[in-house]
Order: sequence, then structure tokens, then C-alpha cells
Amino acid sequence: MIKKDLLLTPGPTTVPAKILLSMAEPLFHHRTPQYQKLFSEVCEGLKFVFRTKHDVLTLTSSGTGAMESAMVNLLSAGDQVIVVDAGKFGERFGDIGKAFGIQCDIIKIPYGKAVDPQVVGDKLKSGNYKAVFTTLCETSTGVVHDIQGLAKVVCNSSAVLICDAISGLGADRLEMDEWGVDVVVSGSQKGLMLPPGLAFIALNDKAWKLTETSELPKFYYNLAQYKKALKKGDTPWTPATTLVVGLNEALKTMHAEGYDEVIDRHARLAESTRAAMTAIGLELFAERPSNAVTSIKVPTGIDGVKLVKVIRDELGITLAGGQGDMKGQIFRFGHLGYCSEYDLVSGVAAVEQVLDRLGYKFKLGDGLTAFQKVIRSRQKLSV
Amino acid sequence: MIKKDLLLTPGPTTVPAKILLSMAEPLFHHRTPQYQKLFSEVCEGLKFVFRTKHDVLTLTSSGTGAMESAMVNLLSAGDQVIVVDAGKFGERFGDIGKAFGIQCDIIKIPYGKAVDPQVVGDKLKSGNYKAVFTTLCETSTGVVHDIQGLAKVVCNSSAVLICDAISGLGADRLEMDEWGVDVVVSGSQKGLMLPPGLAFIALNDKAWKLTETSELPKFYYNLAQYKKALKKGDTPWTPATTLVVGLNEALKTMHAEGYDEVIDRHARLAESTRAAMTAIGLELFAERPSNAVTSIKVPTGIDGVKLVKVIRDELGITLAGGQGDMKGQIFRFGHLGYCSEYDLVSGVAAVEQVLDRLGYKFKLGDGLTAFQKVIRSRQKLSV
Repeated sequence: MIKKDLLLTPGPTTVPAKILLSMAEPLFHHRTPQYQKLFSEVCEGLKFVFRTKHDVLTLTSSGTGAMESAMVNLLSAGDQVIVVDAGKFGERFGDIGKAFGIQCDIIKIPYGKAVDPQVVGDKLKSGNYKAVFTTLCETSTGVVHDIQGLAKVVCNSSAVLICDAISGLGADRLEMDEWGVDVVVSGSQKGLMLPPGLAFIALNDKAWKLTETSELPKFYYNLAQYKKALKKGDTPWTPATTLVVGLNEALKTMHAEGYDEVIDRHARLAESTRAAMTAIGLELFAERPSNAVTSIKVPTGIDGVKLVKVIRDELGITLAGGQGDMKGQIFRFGHLGYCSEYDLVSGVAAVEQVLDRLGYKFKLGDGLTAFQKVIRSRQKLSV
Repeated sequence: MIKKDLLLTPGPTTVPAKILLSMAEPLFHHRTPQYQKLFSEVCEGLKFVFRTKHDVLTLTSSGTGAMESAMVNLLSAGDQVIVVDAGKFGERFGDIGKAFGIQCDIIKIPYGKAVDPQVVGDKLKSGNYKAVFTTLCETSTGVVHDIQGLAKVVCNSSAVLICDAISGLGADRLEMDEWGVDVVVSGSQKGLMLPPGLAFIALNDKAWKLTETSELPKFYYNLAQYKKALKKGDTPWTPATTLVVGLNEALKTMHAEGYDEVIDRHARLAESTRAAMTAIGLELFAERPSNAVTSIKVPTGIDGVKLVKVIRDELGITLAGGQGDMKGQIFRFGHLGYCSEYDLVSGVAAVEQVLDRLGYKFKLGDGLTAFQKVIRSRQKLSV
């Protein structure tokens, strides 16, 4: 039996072979005109995906580092902020804040639910808040928050809105400038179709203004240094050059496809996955589902950990299970970045196969049929 | 004319094609038994190169981040430390300390000179110092410090010795456990023959003890989190997985060659480069030259910036110029990692060619002849 590995997790995601091979080219030095040209192309490409005219800074780091950089560059110890915590990654902003002596007022949202922007708006009026931290797509639950709505309520205050778009960028629509999102953070191993190792942060003028009063200590993540180096087409510390080479390829691909087209493709994949799962009687977990990841409740009587493990170890297809408290309670399809309908058909087929073996009652093929119908109605072909 | 690119800088260094291609393999998820197996092999391999039985922690970061992690995990604001500053990278420890409110007493060493361990020993007695920060190879000058001597004076005090071995690791001998070096920091793009993007830090028991009293805020670089995650064969935040795949290949290669053999190979390359340069009347810059990088003074009347630029742009060979105040004053050969005699022969030939064109007086070929003689006496062959 041929077992082909297929990655359907919400990051890391599959990297196109062309990009993998571009990163296998011989190394060159980063303090050269050759690198500066490459890096300036990358910076322009990032602005396109971040939907901003502001600089997008590239950090050699995982996404968590970019989240930390937002905290330590905008705030001082003792500052009061609001953190929207609707899952593992919202929770992380709270943990970072705690480590740096920030007074984080947590708006705790039950797993699977989205935040109501009005709740944040009301909370903002109750204190002297400098910032609101939220996620675009909460990867751990598959929920996409209403960032446009949040930006509306935050922009009327003196606070800045920081959005962790690590898994959402390039999958769920996020219009940084148009919506007035002050800070956007992301990472390489999601919608950008790259390996992990790079992280990104963009700040608008309101956010840069706030950095001027920040007193938290910082060095590696001192964004003023990145902004200064960018003027010379550079980074302050040695960048992960091979990943930057791959990033340029990825950004060119996205630019050629078009932003609306990229988002619509993700919407179509998410919709078809949801249709497949509900057609076999499964329940979706996220009340406001993301285009990046689909979370499905494990049906009663089925071992959710085993489901994911058998699909991975015996069929070669890696889905994500639940994290933390959600372990065994949900499983998740990642369908972001370099993911096609035909990757997802395999994933849906595998879920059907293993659920059937585990004794879950449904009609084999119903998920795939529902999947096909959505694709039929949503995909543009010449015939 | 065929122009082949050749990288002879002290980082980034050439990555073997086999390793480049290993990193171009399809991605897999990092929270899997497959990754845990890989990462545990890597952790063992790192111990071999760091010459330690202690855990070597892997950070997704440039080397500067690992330097910062040493500061923020060992110290509290107001702590008094000694920083050996004999070039750009020693200076960086001072800059990081300043950013975090550490009272850094700088031992300023003129560029090109090495620190006298006794000076550090005397200084230690003059205050209540918690730590001494030094570099192994000061990349900006080509000097290797006497780390064994420094460890001897520091280990008799309550202070810990932190050694930045970013460019020196695997080129200049550093016996962490045997010499009693408390903390060793390194990066991927030097002797480890990888692209930039990973950094490393190893702490012995004395250093881990000191982390318990550290009050500086930290999150991404909180080493206790890395140590905890390591018990599960993991990292706390998403690692740069493709670089970890390549690292495993690189470490296997170094292990197969043997530590003494790796160091001796670098010593031979450094010795032959020095012989070549002095044979054409040039003066070496470092009084205690490293095996990783050879710094040479630009002779009077020659434009050092132009020398490096012509060699790079017209011959395809990238050497390093001087950094900061040293710009135009020196040029540097990197000969670390995946670098052979035949790479260096090209570098020496290129320097001869362009020096001659720029009007420097010497006998063409004398550098290469001297180079050959050292290799002849130092290289073991079957004939």
C-alpha cells in the first residue's frame, strides 16, 4: 500500500515544492545588494497581504515572539489592557502580559464562541485601557472573531487594537488599514505557505506613537531597531535568509492570484468541509467558523484521540486534534495556504473511513457527496 | 566567463547541498512522534558539539536572541556584571545589558587584542559581580579569547561565565564541561553549516541555579519553559522545523568526523590562510587568531572596501570587510563549517589577483605557494 503523507493541520501547512526548492539554493550573505533587493520585494509583498501601506517588519522567531514584541513595544509595566481570550492563543496574550507586569483584564469567551464587539466597547469605557489584544482566527477552536466590528469600537477610544492573525492571515479577510486595525501580527507557517521560523508585525501611526512611551525593556524585539534597519533594506540581527527567499516566492504567488481570490478560495474550502461534516451528522464546534480551520465535535462514544491517530499513523493524513481542555473533544481540519479541494477530499474520505471503523453510524460517502456539491456550486471552471 | 559564487564569510557559511535538500523535504507537524524522535537526536548531537552533558536548548531566533536569553534568565535589573568588549559582538552584550537595566562594567579591549584572564580575575574581586560575559571568537576582529583561562578565574568566584560561541563553535576548541564554562550560546549559520534561524544555549547547574533568582521579565526566551518542553521532546513555541531537519544532518556529519578532527581541520585552514597572507607582505590583525575567521589589515594606499567589492561583484567570491570602525581597515576570510582547502585556494587566488590590479606590490603566486606548503605539512593523505 502506498501511503502518501498529507498535512491538513492549521499550521505548519504544506509548502509548495517550488518554494521548498527555492530555499535549497546556495546561501548568500545578507549584507549585500542582492539580499537588500530581495528583502525590499518581500516588504512590498507583505504590505499587499497585510492590506496596509505601513511597514511590515520581519522577525526571525515563531509567532509567539511577534506577539511578545507587540506587548513590549507598546506598553509599560502596570499598564491596563483588555485581552480577548477565546482559546489557547487568546490565553497566550494574557500569559505574555502577566510575564511583563501588564494588568490584563481578560474577557473570557467560552471555547467555540466569538467575542461580541459591544462587550469590548463597554469594557473599554470602564477603565483607562491602552490596548485591546485579540486573535483573528483562534486556531484552537476554529472561531474567527469580528475584527472589523472590534476595530470600530476600539478606534473611538485612545486604545490600540492588536490582532494576532497568525493562522488567519491570507485565509480570513483582514483589512488592516481600511478597518483601522492598529497592529497585526503573523507567522510564516500558515497561510503564507512557508516553514515556521519567521514572524511579522505591522503597526500604524497610532501604534508607533504608543511605542514612544513604552518603558518595558527590550532588545531583540525592539521594533524601532527593525524600522531603522528597514530603511537600509535590512534587519537589525541576522535574518533567516533561506526562509526570506521562500517568502518572496510565496508572496509572488499570492499577488498573482489576487487578494479577493485567495480569500474566496479559503472560504470555499471551509464551506465544503463544513458541509461534508454536517452531512454525516457531525456537529461544528465554532459558532463563527474561520476559513483557515474547521473544528468538529467528536461524536459521543467515539475516541477522538484515536480517530486522529489512526488517520495519521495508518493513512498518512495529519489532521489536528483538540488542544488542552479540548483534547479528544474536537478534531480540526486545516485548509489554509497551499491546500486544494483534492487535498480536502482525501481528508474527508479518511475521516469517513476511520469513523466507520470506530463504529460511528452514518452512510459512507455522504460527506464526500455534500463536499462535491459545494465545490460544484462555488468553483469557477471553463466547463 | 563562468563566475561561481563562493561564500567565504564568517557566517552565513556554505550549507552542503545534501543538507539543503534535506530541508527541502515535505513538512511534517512538530507535535508528532516523528518530530520528537528527530528532535531528541538533535539534542544529543548538540551536546556532542557543545562538549557538555547538560541540555542544549534550541531557540527559533538569531544568535542575538540567545545572547539576550542569557541576560534575562540569569539576572535582575540592577545586577552588576562584567562584559569583555573586544569588538562588535562583545559590545552587543553591553548593549543588551543596558536595555535591561543591568549594571555592565565593560572591560574594553582594543580591536584586534585578546582579553587577559587575569584582568578579569582582578576585576571580579573589585565588586559583587553575578556574571562575566565574553565571546569565544570575536567575529569582528578574528580574535579568539582564552576561554579556558577565563573559566579558571571565574569558577573561583560566585559569578557565572557566559560565552558567546556563535561563530567559534565547532571551529575553536571550547570544552564547556571540562573547562567549567557555565553558559554557552551559539547560532546555526556558522560552524554548524546551516542557514541562519536557529540559536542555542546550554547552562550548567551553577547557571540554572542563578536563573531561580532572576527577576527580569521574559516569555519567548524563558528558558525554564524550554527545559520543561524538552522533557517531552519538544519546544514551547513552534520551532523552525526545516532547519531542525538540516541540523540533524549537520550534527551527524560532525559526529562522524570527530570533534578533534573538526577542530584540527579548522586550525589547518586558518594556519594556511595566515601563511598565505603574510607571504605576500600583509599583516594579520588578530593577536590571538581564531580558527573560524582570519582578519588581515588592508595595506596602506589600498582601498579595502573596493578590494572586497571587486572580489565579490566581479569574481563571485564573498569575503567580509571590516565592520563599524574597522570598515576599509581590514578584510576577513571566513573558513568555518563546510569549507575546504580548495575553497580557500580560490579565495587566496582572488585576493592576489585584485590586490595586484589595485597596485599593491608583491610577487603573484607567493601567497598560494605559502598556502600549499602549510597544507602539504598538515594534511593527512594516503600518499
